[in-house]
Amino acid sequence: MVEFTVFKGSKEGKIIKSTTQRELQPNEVLIKVTHSGLCGTDEHYRHEDMGLGHEGAGIIEEVGASVKTYRKGDSVGWGYQSGSCGHCKHCLTGHETICPERKMYGYANRDHGSFSSYAVWNADFIFSIPSSIPREYAAPLMCGGATVFNALHAFSVKSTDRVGIIGVGGLGHLAIQFASKMGCQVIVFSSTDSKKDEALKLGADEFVATKGAKELHVSAPIDHLLVTTSFQPDWNQFLPIMSPGGTVFPLTVSPEELKIPYMPFLAGELRIQGSLVAARQVHKEMLAFAAHHQIRPIIEQFPMTVEGIMESMKKLEDGKMRYRGVVVAQ
Amino acid sequence: MVEFTVFKGSKEGKIIKSTTQRELQPNEVLIKVTHSGLCGTDEHYRHEDMGLGHEGAGIIEEVGASVKTYRKGDSVGWGYQSGSCGHCKHCLTGHETICPERKMYGYANRDHGSFSSYAVWNADFIFSIPSSIPREYAAPLMCGGATVFNALHAFSVKSTDRVGIIGVGGLGHLAIQFASKMGCQVIVFSSTDSKKDEALKLGADEFVATKGAKELHVSAPIDHLLVTTSFQPDWNQFLPIMSPGGTVFPLTVSPEELKIPYMPFLAGELRIQGSLVAARQVHKEMLAFAAHHQIRPIIEQFPMTVEGIMESMKKLEDGKMRYRGVVVAQ
Repeated sequence: MVEFTVFKGSKEGKIIKSTTQRELQPNEVLIKVTHSGLCGTDEHYRHEDMGLGHEGAGIIEEVGASVKTYRKGDSVGWGYQSGSCGHCKHCLTGHETICPERKMYGYANRDHGSFSSYAVWNADFIFSIPSSIPREYAAPLMCGGATVFNALHAFSVKSTDRVGIIGVGGLGHLAIQFASKMGCQVIVFSSTDSKKDEALKLGADEFVATKGAKELHVSAPIDHLLVTTSFQPDWNQFLPIMSPGGTVFPLTVSPEELKIPYMPFLAGELRIQGSLVAARQVHKEMLAFAAHHQIRPIIEQFPMTVEGIMESMKKLEDGKMRYRGVVVAQ
Repeated sequence: MVEFTVFKGSKEGKIIKSTTQRELQPNEVLIKVTHSGLCGTDEHYRHEDMGLGHEGAGIIEEVGASVKTYRKGDSVGWGYQSGSCGHCKHCLTGHETICPERKMYGYANRDHGSFSSYAVWNADFIFSIPSSIPREYAAPLMCGGATVFNALHAFSVKSTDRVGIIGVGGLGHLAIQFASKMGCQVIVFSSTDSKKDEALKLGADEFVATKGAKELHVSAPIDHLLVTTSFQPDWNQFLPIMSPGGTVFPLTVSPEELKIPYMPFLAGELRIQGSLVAARQVHKEMLAFAAHHQIRPIIEQFPMTVEGIMESMKKLEDGKMRYRGVVVAQ
């Protein structure tokens, strides 16, 4: 039996330091957590009595009896998913993120997340971190990186395409880098010019400030549009600059309805494509691609304490994080 | 110069018998119209001063000087589109229906449609009708058939998939036949049981009456859902029976916004795919497939007169057409 510290949400939204106990199962690994990214989804769960954090990175301390692919001392990461049935059509075709029995952050393993001193995780759902990526930079790739990479990699984006990215935040600043290194033309949309220089440095080819603009001006239409903001864009701004046959990827979580003007959508044969975090093979390819191209999040570090986590969440909520918060084990 | 009869819309919605004049261009053909299908889109344009009808069938009477692929006496059909630029990326990859310079019903060739005694049409945008398909049955394939076939053929539907079809009307009753002959499992949704027997005869494997149903019961989830009704479905009924990774094809024209609950859409990695009429190669494959499998619309015939057209439009508007109206040259 292992007992370890966890940081949980609570009804009032305060972060609570607590403990949980786990007995290591044969297919599990015990990971000493060193870092965890902070994602917008953690904010959604801070009012629930559950362990927070789902962008974990750490070092394996012990492996279960049947684990063959990892050893003590391995540097590993994990994200949103901790299991799937393994035998449905989605699992059998490499789409286990949409398995009807998938185990996901929010409703599986609620006793602990990656804001914890240790994690006990299904060995089938952890990932080796390439040695060239320090764990503080690897952690945000486990959800934020995997989410934008999946949209760019698992559907129909080609290297010759023009990729629009709305929002330069935790997801957007990684999407710019991935799309640019994939060879795409990258057009970034942000409310103001305040992040323009950084977006261009990250690989953007064009930058468009959207606030108050009646029309958006781009050098040519957009083939794929990644919506990485926490709110839905003004479609009357964006539909006129979409290429016919183009794709919209709404990546962020929203309690609202998805609403799009019908006729421009139909007349342009546009596609709206739901895309989640990456399935495991895509996730592995994401890590290899990030290592090969030295793609790293820009991070701000906070101590993994009640105060540190609260501070990081406040900064994210206020829209001041540039660009991904990482909490660091003390 | 050719002068011929056309039936047009008018501000008040009355059908007006009129004439137009055309000089045959080198790339055009003169077609003696024998039949025209009646489509919901004609209803949308009946209040405009333009020639109606876009599901044409007839016999070539004369070919322009540069036309090489057709001869006098050929049995041909034509639909929504009459031109495209020929050099943009969409034209060059067989997607000319989304060419930014496409010429489409409603804003090109407004002087005459297929409700006319003759038609003068770009020879690049007409189609040979297979000899086994009488023209009264070929006409509705030119838009209605092409629209549902395009959704089933040009995107990601596989023969092993389960295809849901909402609505048994002009489009739906053709979609059932195409999907069934493609080998798909076909699940038909209609408000009541009144069309159940006919849907099953056309090839449906399951039939679900939706009116007043809190939950829809199907034997397994739906991979692709074709919305062929003139109104949007109640997504709270349909999203729970969609397979993760599934596709929704909203095929009909609506002035409203497309509204879908966001989270079930994202969590299931669903896709909403805009799909228009078929590009030309797909259209040709549609006709060959229909001929090979003896797929035919079920039609009601009306005389191509002011009264006949008005009567057919009334029947369509009242939801009483079973299943496609065809107006016949007198």
